[in-house]
Amino acid sequence: MLDADMGEFDLIERYFTRPAARAALGVGDDCALLEPGPGMQLAVSSDMLVEGRHFLSTVDPCKLGHKALAVNLSDLAACGAAPLAFTLALALPRADDAWLAPFARGLLALADQHGCDLIGGDTTQGPLNICITVFGEVPRGQALLRSGAQAGDDVYVSGTLGDARLALEVFRGTLDVPAEVFRQARARLEQPTPRVALGLALRGVASSAIDVSDGLLGDLGHILKASGVGAVIDTSMTTNLIAAYQGPTKAKAGFDSDKQLDYVLAGGDDYELVFTAQVARRQAVQAAAAHAQTPVTRIGSIEAQPGLRLVDAQGAPVSVQHLRSFDHFA
Amino acid sequence: MLDADMGEFDLIERYFTRPAARAALGVGDDCALLEPGPGMQLAVSSDMLVEGRHFLSTVDPCKLGHKALAVNLSDLAACGAAPLAFTLALALPRADDAWLAPFARGLLALADQHGCDLIGGDTTQGPLNICITVFGEVPRGQALLRSGAQAGDDVYVSGTLGDARLALEVFRGTLDVPAEVFRQARARLEQPTPRVALGLALRGVASSAIDVSDGLLGDLGHILKASGVGAVIDTSMTTNLIAAYQGPTKAKAGFDSDKQLDYVLAGGDDYELVFTAQVARRQAVQAAAAHAQTPVTRIGSIEAQPGLRLVDAQGAPVSVQHLRSFDHFA
Repeated sequence: MLDADMGEFDLIERYFTRPAARAALGVGDDCALLEPGPGMQLAVSSDMLVEGRHFLSTVDPCKLGHKALAVNLSDLAACGAAPLAFTLALALPRADDAWLAPFARGLLALADQHGCDLIGGDTTQGPLNICITVFGEVPRGQALLRSGAQAGDDVYVSGTLGDARLALEVFRGTLDVPAEVFRQARARLEQPTPRVALGLALRGVASSAIDVSDGLLGDLGHILKASGVGAVIDTSMTTNLIAAYQGPTKAKAGFDSDKQLDYVLAGGDDYELVFTAQVARRQAVQAAAAHAQTPVTRIGSIEAQPGLRLVDAQGAPVSVQHLRSFDHFA
Repeated sequence: MLDADMGEFDLIERYFTRPAARAALGVGDDCALLEPGPGMQLAVSSDMLVEGRHFLSTVDPCKLGHKALAVNLSDLAACGAAPLAFTLALALPRADDAWLAPFARGLLALADQHGCDLIGGDTTQGPLNICITVFGEVPRGQALLRSGAQAGDDVYVSGTLGDARLALEVFRGTLDVPAEVFRQARARLEQPTPRVALGLALRGVASSAIDVSDGLLGDLGHILKASGVGAVIDTSMTTNLIAAYQGPTKAKAGFDSDKQLDYVLAGGDDYELVFTAQVARRQAVQAAAAHAQTPVTRIGSIEAQPGLRLVDAQGAPVSVQHLRSFDHFA
């Protein structure tokens, strides 16, 4: 760890070395040392972000620092784990203060919000690549898994969906929206809010959970597969979820309902939680959402029959061409 | 975790999903779950390997899979930690069976040797980049740190140094050596042996340790800095260490002693352990080396005076121009 082969060991010291508050040993040795509390398990997740695929080359490095950690914290949230620490491996074309300083600022500001220690990592020269591995704590047996959904459970999603995709399509030039709509959507794309508080509040309440990184249908599909169940989703609930695109400007931009449904169901990069809970836990779910100050919307039900069925408000089948998760390769 | 955005979730299943033997939860959810045993701390290290910097584009993917994990296991060895699990984040230009199958084979063969579970990760499209985060267990308070060296301690190095650099110089065209010498040196460069058994045997014996990834002098320098001490190194001991270059062919290749000293002291990519131990522990060090079936050589002493002093067999100062660690940027 911390084998910085940029000929600049001081780069690590300058930007990334801080005392570890929660780790037994932080940055500065071959390994960092972590010790989960008694009865706690360590939840571990890795995400790698590549320029041109997960972020645009024009992105503000400060926002990129935020996002790189946020997408990892989102995985902890989906497991109901409390953030503890993370490692950062960074390939950079060159050691560039003008990039590193704001990147570290955005990264560490979000880390501080969640009490998450930067405990080590690696820096090297190469095409820009950011790989974070994050560690959280969860009481033994209480992690929210993908495999716990049961027939009859409600299906919920947190916050709003589709905004990040809307911003991406504006960047791609396939969509024009009013400046204020774009501003809001862009913030969701570039600085997602990991639903850590909600994940913690859902321990013992949700029967399964996953974070929406590749699109609602695709990620819900992982729950269905892991749990051996199916689901029916009321698209009239989900179509209300694009936050950035409410209000009177909506009709002006030629943003039709099919496109909106596409963005919501298969947009990707949302970093909301989709989760299930028993019908008997509806009050507990609302209490968890209130405690976490995170809105949740009930959008459907788990069924024994495998597969994902979309219906409208009247229960009539809705056909969409976007049942496959949004694909970064597309 | 495991958000494979290559449009090929089956890629993960095909190559990287196996039952976890030691993790509470392995591949297949947002997070993996790890639980160190009672009284154990988790040692964590990350290394990122980039094509053209850490490996040549011509390298056999099977050997690359081995090396990617080996350099991480080497960090665990340097802490005296027993391998437990690892995550793999992989950026690939394209999903390519002809590359992935041998890469996974080399990676998992070494993992199996060390009982180290692949518990999760990420795959994405992008310039080839391999980021592994490795987890080991070490009893609380027994990790070998860089900061424990004290004046009077002996300095040791395991195995042999300089071979990887020799192979690299042949690849670079700056050196010609006999085919058999190159074959041996190339194996050290492409398939280093992490000194895990030695690291474990040195718990409670060594006062400090680090693995030699950037060159003996540079990495020993980290121990000296962290411990607030200096050292004197007998270069006549270290110059005996190039394994691939012993024997009658030596004189034929114009491989002068200055170059040999350079490779040994500042070659890099050796993945041996350099460590310190009290003089009173010499027998214990030899017992540890015998137990681990790993040769170790005593090459000098720790002194209170800061700095690194090189001497010959008669104790006369040796001046070298290579006191800075081998730099991958060079």
